[in-house]
Amino acid sequence: MKNKQVILVKKPEGLINESHFSIGFTDISSPKEGEVLVKNRYVSIDPYLRLLTEEPTTFSRGVKPGNRMESWSVGEVVESKSPVFQSGQYVLGYLGWQEYGLSNERDLRPIDPSIASLPAFLGVLGMPGITAYLGMFDYGKPQAGQTVLISAAAGTVGMTAGQFAKMHSCKVVGITDSEEKCRFLLEELNFDYAINEKSEDLEQKLKQCVPEGIDLYYDNVGGETLDTALLFLRKNSRVVICGMISQYNVKTPYAIKNFERLHSARATLKGFIVGDRTDRWPEAIRKLETWVKEKKLKHKENVFHGLENAPKALHSIFTNAPIGKTVVEV
Amino acid sequence: MKNKQVILVKKPEGLINESHFSIGFTDISSPKEGEVLVKNRYVSIDPYLRLLTEEPTTFSRGVKPGNRMESWSVGEVVESKSPVFQSGQYVLGYLGWQEYGLSNERDLRPIDPSIASLPAFLGVLGMPGITAYLGMFDYGKPQAGQTVLISAAAGTVGMTAGQFAKMHSCKVVGITDSEEKCRFLLEELNFDYAINEKSEDLEQKLKQCVPEGIDLYYDNVGGETLDTALLFLRKNSRVVICGMISQYNVKTPYAIKNFERLHSARATLKGFIVGDRTDRWPEAIRKLETWVKEKKLKHKENVFHGLENAPKALHSIFTNAPIGKTVVEV
Repeated sequence: MKNKQVILVKKPEGLINESHFSIGFTDISSPKEGEVLVKNRYVSIDPYLRLLTEEPTTFSRGVKPGNRMESWSVGEVVESKSPVFQSGQYVLGYLGWQEYGLSNERDLRPIDPSIASLPAFLGVLGMPGITAYLGMFDYGKPQAGQTVLISAAAGTVGMTAGQFAKMHSCKVVGITDSEEKCRFLLEELNFDYAINEKSEDLEQKLKQCVPEGIDLYYDNVGGETLDTALLFLRKNSRVVICGMISQYNVKTPYAIKNFERLHSARATLKGFIVGDRTDRWPEAIRKLETWVKEKKLKHKENVFHGLENAPKALHSIFTNAPIGKTVVEV
Repeated sequence: MKNKQVILVKKPEGLINESHFSIGFTDISSPKEGEVLVKNRYVSIDPYLRLLTEEPTTFSRGVKPGNRMESWSVGEVVESKSPVFQSGQYVLGYLGWQEYGLSNERDLRPIDPSIASLPAFLGVLGMPGITAYLGMFDYGKPQAGQTVLISAAAGTVGMTAGQFAKMHSCKVVGITDSEEKCRFLLEELNFDYAINEKSEDLEQKLKQCVPEGIDLYYDNVGGETLDTALLFLRKNSRVVICGMISQYNVKTPYAIKNFERLHSARATLKGFIVGDRTDRWPEAIRKLETWVKEKKLKHKENVFHGLENAPKALHSIFTNAPIGKTVVEV
């Protein structure tokens, strides 16, 4: 038996697609003392993976061409040399785009599939949900009555962050890119406004939806959307830079014209990366699991089938992202 | 006897100059109960005055064409209907570009000319010094061993902020625009490096001076200097946006290419305006006066003579700013 893997074969220039990957096979290693062999059931597809295909930076350690693609995954323990994990148990790990992965026991999180479906542990109950939790509560700090604007609002981070702002009695406006997503934000999540920036003029629309301006901009996309949002910052507002999806596949970054607004609005801007604050993860996970169990937090997952379709799935989230979290069933 | 004033006659487009002002005369009003008549000795010349000549915003209330130009000033009480001020006493107020000004007693600060020359109360001991104090201590928070970069470093705000960073045992690098100013920063203020961005390539120079990157960027100029500084942000660094002098006279703002660095550096950026935090002024003034008296804080003032030269002085700080604070002797 061999271990199927998805290998990065070349650094993409521009939009990432299937041509940047190939399928490879390795032997399946046996766990050593303290290690666990996991059979992946789902691997995660996230925008930040695009950054891993670039040169390593302080921001991302990078995946070199020729190497297996990294990612979060959920799977089942098939062989354990750890007292804390048993065969058959479900776990979350950072095992990458492959069928089998070996992990140190310390790097696995046991998961309880009675709380939600396995893919949800890669979304609302995993890194993206924790990102929204820290981004909103540690940095964004929404307060009752404030106006909160969120970009990529129908992605897992955006929709989770938006629901947190609603929990705090904020007026929540989501920016997204389809009518279907707008309906989802309005009807399923009770956002106050949803803007389809593909078909609507964002600036005009914001003038209508937030004549009072915004107290918090939670940004997942960067670029022109961010630039327009800056125009609406109120005095003493906050900007949380959580991601810049629109910029991950471009060679020349969009230049921000309205930077001055950060001064005249006396804004506080915070760029953050969820992996810097793993000390805050246990609290976030506890809260996220509780709210999902209590149905206070909605979520949605989209499953591609077959590990070999992981590159296609990654391409899709930059071109035609579905609502919520994208995963690949191995 | 008439009161000579400098009047804004038209909204400038581009660089402000003498053609935007004229001289006018009004009667000298007598103080009512609780009011004080002040004969201005020096009026202040500051970059933000350029913003006052634009339409009012949340940022600046604006001076309409036809009206007297506003500014801080120091002068002498000539007639008082207030129990707290006596004739002959020196005061600091917001009395504008005119010979005589009437003020409510609440809006005047008594000053002690034994601490420093009168012009210094418009610089290091006035709004610019307080700006540097709040910008550094409330927002920048320099810590021993950190690297601090300051733009417009030979202006009053920049040189005061830089001296605060030196007091905190930081490595301090100043960006300025002449050899004379570089020498001043290095020889008089003991900055670790000074860069003349007019004659040197800022990015290359920063690569040499701060290979470790910067922990705090204290920005007074915005534009391309800011854009380049963003490239050097270290992980968890801070950016304090205190002013954007380079942008005050331009119609199309410089667009920031390296905005993404605020995310990848996990930076915290704070835009602030000193007038928002008058609650913090008494502490700042107390400390500034103490440090000036103890010679722990250096300062420098440049005096233009004659109220009618205030427009020329304002033009000069955007084209050929001297070291330190510019004032006009009335």
